[in-house]
Amino acid sequence: MSEGGTTRIPFVSRMRADDAASWLAALNAAMPGRQVVPLAELTPAERAAAAVAIVADPDPADLLPMHRLVWVQSLWAGVERMLSETQGAPYAIVRMNDPQLALTMAEAVLAWTLYLHRDMPRYRRQQQAAQWRQHPLALARDRRIGILGLGNLGKAAACALVNQGFNVSGWSRTASGFDGVETLTGEDGLDALLEWTDILVILLPLTPETRGLMDRRRLGTLPVSASIINFARGPIIDDDALLEALNTGHLGHAVLDVFATEPLPEASPYWKHPGVTVLPHISAPTNKATASRIVAANVEAYLRTGMVPPGVDRAKGY
Amino acid sequence: MSEGGTTRIPFVSRMRADDAASWLAALNAAMPGRQVVPLAELTPAERAAAAVAIVADPDPADLLPMHRLVWVQSLWAGVERMLSETQGAPYAIVRMNDPQLALTMAEAVLAWTLYLHRDMPRYRRQQQAAQWRQHPLALARDRRIGILGLGNLGKAAACALVNQGFNVSGWSRTASGFDGVETLTGEDGLDALLEWTDILVILLPLTPETRGLMDRRRLGTLPVSASIINFARGPIIDDDALLEALNTGHLGHAVLDVFATEPLPEASPYWKHPGVTVLPHISAPTNKATASRIVAANVEAYLRTGMVPPGVDRAKGY
Repeated sequence: MSEGGTTRIPFVSRMRADDAASWLAALNAAMPGRQVVPLAELTPAERAAAAVAIVADPDPADLLPMHRLVWVQSLWAGVERMLSETQGAPYAIVRMNDPQLALTMAEAVLAWTLYLHRDMPRYRRQQQAAQWRQHPLALARDRRIGILGLGNLGKAAACALVNQGFNVSGWSRTASGFDGVETLTGEDGLDALLEWTDILVILLPLTPETRGLMDRRRLGTLPVSASIINFARGPIIDDDALLEALNTGHLGHAVLDVFATEPLPEASPYWKHPGVTVLPHISAPTNKATASRIVAANVEAYLRTGMVPPGVDRAKGY
Repeated sequence: MSEGGTTRIPFVSRMRADDAASWLAALNAAMPGRQVVPLAELTPAERAAAAVAIVADPDPADLLPMHRLVWVQSLWAGVERMLSETQGAPYAIVRMNDPQLALTMAEAVLAWTLYLHRDMPRYRRQQQAAQWRQHPLALARDRRIGILGLGNLGKAAACALVNQGFNVSGWSRTASGFDGVETLTGEDGLDALLEWTDILVILLPLTPETRGLMDRRRLGTLPVSASIINFARGPIIDDDALLEALNTGHLGHAVLDVFATEPLPEASPYWKHPGVTVLPHISAPTNKATASRIVAANVEAYLRTGMVPPGVDRAKGY
């Protein structure tokens, strides 16, 4: 894997060429003394010898010739597609775990929670109708925010909301309560959380257990006029059930950043629905500079000591 | 001013009857043992004897028969209209100074700063065009927020923004720097702040000095694509100059909650301008429950001890 003293590390992705070029620039800037290069530039011998690769939604066929691959560093935090496409592969998959990502996601959750709390969609509709009308404002402490998923992202989001005075509860597989946030668990806990919630924030990983979790029954368990923010993965919500709940007026508004198919197809009823805010998967973009420093630290530690960072648990799916 | 042991305190306003009724309910709930009553219910003798009144944008003619009025408690924080209508009047005017008001305003500043920081107006336009397109996201620490006015409201807003990681500077009449917020003062300081600012937040009182402060030259001092949030008073901005700056593309967006004439006239070009978010004066509504407790404490202290709370400085105008 060495060539004239420089380790060449393969970069494997299905990105557009301009995206890949800017990632390569950021990664190489963070790793002086190494060379991160597109897979196509490696010789067959280099591919066969590579023990580590940097990946972003890679074509699994590209990884097959790397017989000695020990682990791959993903640039993304969500790796469910890669997991399903590389079942049985012997290498470990390390997710991006950038503290900046959690801060950016927490910022997004706070921003769109305030968007709903402050009635921005309604005031927007009033502006279109040149209508001047004030609506009562609840105090933040009287606004109940339920968070599904309390991993790194969910915890950071909960902290940001608590700091801003909101009444926050969460639900996760394993109850791990923390200051100021009651944590529920299990089927009954989920129902109890949904019954209580004014604004539901979804930050769960997509797994066989969470696919379709927010079905007709659970959406109906939310109180009348509750709102939903989905910053996790589209298939966690049943789209038909959500549209029905919005159309009957049971739910007030949905902020959707993720969809079963992305980009969202032009024919989707979400685009024109007055009760839906469509975002193009922008809640927590990876910051190339901070993420490249994480990748650099992980790869350098491995090259120097052989230590592989903790990988995804293929059974749990995250 | 006593009747059967109960002090009757006049309530003087030009509110709609239903608004006045809900204020009277909140005030009376906060003042057991007193009676807050509409002016019309007082006898001429009671009016002549009244030393204190609770007011909300009162008709000055209504206050004239109260010869012994020592002070009035306003329900509003902004009293410039009352000041200009009651020049030379001998009584003190006490503004509403509710800590909840500052928290609510800080929440509004944070909410609409995040609205601009997170490009919500642009993603809204994209949704209308069924367009899926991601834009780069700046880190909060690289987003420069300039606050005009660092009284109670400005300081609370600055703290909320600093807590969320933004780069915040402020400008006020008297430089009173505080942790993490550089404070500028004077004409040169204002120009320096404007040159530096990505998002300008206006929280100044309306005085002869601040009327028309954001004129053509000062709007032009802001960097290209800067945005403005005005949560103070409409006449602080020159409307024609603002529209020009938005139309030439010098400014990116304006969030306007206050206007020279309110409700905003139907003919105003702001309603339909794609670069303007019109809000119906909702940034920091007074919370009737918390405000009534402040009024109660001030009035009770006066009735028991004769102590008048600090009033507005008629020379400064706030």
